[in-house]
Amino acid sequence: MIRWGILGPGHIAHKFAKDLLTVPDATLYAVASSDQQRADEFAGQYAIPHSFGRYEDLLTLPELDVVYVATRHIRHHDDAVMLLNGGKAVLGEKPFAMNLAQVQHMVDTARSKRVFLMEALWSRFMPTLLKARELVESGAIGQVTGVRADFGFKAMFDPEGRLFDKKLGGGALLDIGIYPLFWSYFILGMPQSIKATATFGSTGVDEQVGIIMTYADGEMAILDSTLRAKTPCEAFVYGTEGLIKVHGRWHESTSLTVERIGEEPETHTFERATFGYNFEAKHVMDCLTNGQTESPLWSLTDSLNLMTLLDQVRAEAGIEY
Amino acid sequence: MIRWGILGPGHIAHKFAKDLLTVPDATLYAVASSDQQRADEFAGQYAIPHSFGRYEDLLTLPELDVVYVATRHIRHHDDAVMLLNGGKAVLGEKPFAMNLAQVQHMVDTARSKRVFLMEALWSRFMPTLLKARELVESGAIGQVTGVRADFGFKAMFDPEGRLFDKKLGGGALLDIGIYPLFWSYFILGMPQSIKATATFGSTGVDEQVGIIMTYADGEMAILDSTLRAKTPCEAFVYGTEGLIKVHGRWHESTSLTVERIGEEPETHTFERATFGYNFEAKHVMDCLTNGQTESPLWSLTDSLNLMTLLDQVRAEAGIEY
Repeated sequence: MIRWGILGPGHIAHKFAKDLLTVPDATLYAVASSDQQRADEFAGQYAIPHSFGRYEDLLTLPELDVVYVATRHIRHHDDAVMLLNGGKAVLGEKPFAMNLAQVQHMVDTARSKRVFLMEALWSRFMPTLLKARELVESGAIGQVTGVRADFGFKAMFDPEGRLFDKKLGGGALLDIGIYPLFWSYFILGMPQSIKATATFGSTGVDEQVGIIMTYADGEMAILDSTLRAKTPCEAFVYGTEGLIKVHGRWHESTSLTVERIGEEPETHTFERATFGYNFEAKHVMDCLTNGQTESPLWSLTDSLNLMTLLDQVRAEAGIEY
Repeated sequence: MIRWGILGPGHIAHKFAKDLLTVPDATLYAVASSDQQRADEFAGQYAIPHSFGRYEDLLTLPELDVVYVATRHIRHHDDAVMLLNGGKAVLGEKPFAMNLAQVQHMVDTARSKRVFLMEALWSRFMPTLLKARELVESGAIGQVTGVRADFGFKAMFDPEGRLFDKKLGGGALLDIGIYPLFWSYFILGMPQSIKATATFGSTGVDEQVGIIMTYADGEMAILDSTLRAKTPCEAFVYGTEGLIKVHGRWHESTSLTVERIGEEPETHTFERATFGYNFEAKHVMDCLTNGQTESPLWSLTDSLNLMTLLDQVRAEAGIEY
């Protein structure tokens, strides 16, 4: 039995909580919000025994095993560090923090305290994306020549909302641009060069971001994200003998198609009844059960690398928070 | 009746000639190659009355109305200028020439001689792409936020071949990268900023090219082309109320789908029995019949603009010939 706490009972926490109900041996044990009533309502909805109106009260429960941090981007660092210093294992929503320095500090804290810490890069644990990488590694599409991924949705413009507020880390890059970057990293690792451009909306946030990266063997990544339009949200791996297409929306996809040149396309489907947060949650629980303080599948080095890419894109595209 | 000449009876000239057979009032009247036998064979195949082993011999036929120039990239400028100076109307294959200075010289020559000149940007005349722009202009997808297009195929590596020879203008950009650039220009016009990256193969040509451009209202173009892999070859226009997807291979496509947010997708199909060169040929004939020396649909200014973009991408990506 692993006892979960939830810090920040917002939209994403609801989806996470629902998925957690499907994971064997997972117990929703505590929830904390800056607003006691909000915490109580969330607790009532999921039959959670402990609810708090202060984040740090989660530390009053010695039997609590791990906390899922789902606060706003700008709080991720402070909330994670508070929990780690209190000895709590942390699964921290993406973006893991606002910049590399913050992530480095979180990693240093976790390592010095010997406490488990992982970025909630849920797509990393999706069976469909794992299958894509397995196919790539098996040589199904020959030598990889590049990747492409887009992520765009039409955000309701709300100048007061988090997504359009620079001070809260709003904009496309941290919210959704991180997914195409993850895809490139998942398939190709770290690039040799990065070019990136953003266009900005009336509140100053990056509403559209385009990224081109190149790699040691001349591979190329073409990535884009936007808050202005619904795009297909497809991810591709291109190879010398064919391509893999992960169907939209790829970051949570249940199917992919392999198109080998000269052959009939072949589709692999991975139906599920959840949003898909159960896979990362299950992995965290396995790590905790095994006494691991770091995931072997999405390591802290992976998180540092991904944030390094985000920082480099910001610098290239002139995105500031 | 319009009498056509063909200069450079290669692969593309064969397709053009076949399509021309379907165009009312078009006559294949002459063909010229640097190799008389090659010209004769082509003439025999399409029942062309005149065949020459020297390009300039086309000028010996006063009744010849227009010449389709389908030589190698590096010859386009010289061949077009020779014909224009001889008073022949010219439809010149893309890339129109190797750089902006050459295109400017061709344009100056045509204008001073008052002779018709047009770039063979055949996709510009495809009913499917015209429909896409008509839909955009009618507001079918709201305000345009950006475009995306890819063009990739797995080229057989031949270090002696034109496509891999820098001196012959080989590489992805001039051969196929021009199509995504055309798409962006066709929908959004000239950009405010361009970032581009290329990766190079063993012979030094650009084998992969990625391009990001931004526009006055924050629109973005995401374009990529590659000789290393077969990519979907799809083109998109994104808008605030939906998207238009031109199905692969988009530059010669017979169908597109409009996906308006919250509505069922709607597909428009334009079947044809030709490769699609007939549309540009028909337009050239209309211009000649009307006494026009420049196309109102794909003007010389359009060609100058497209070559300006190609030159800027080259400079950004470090592509040299």
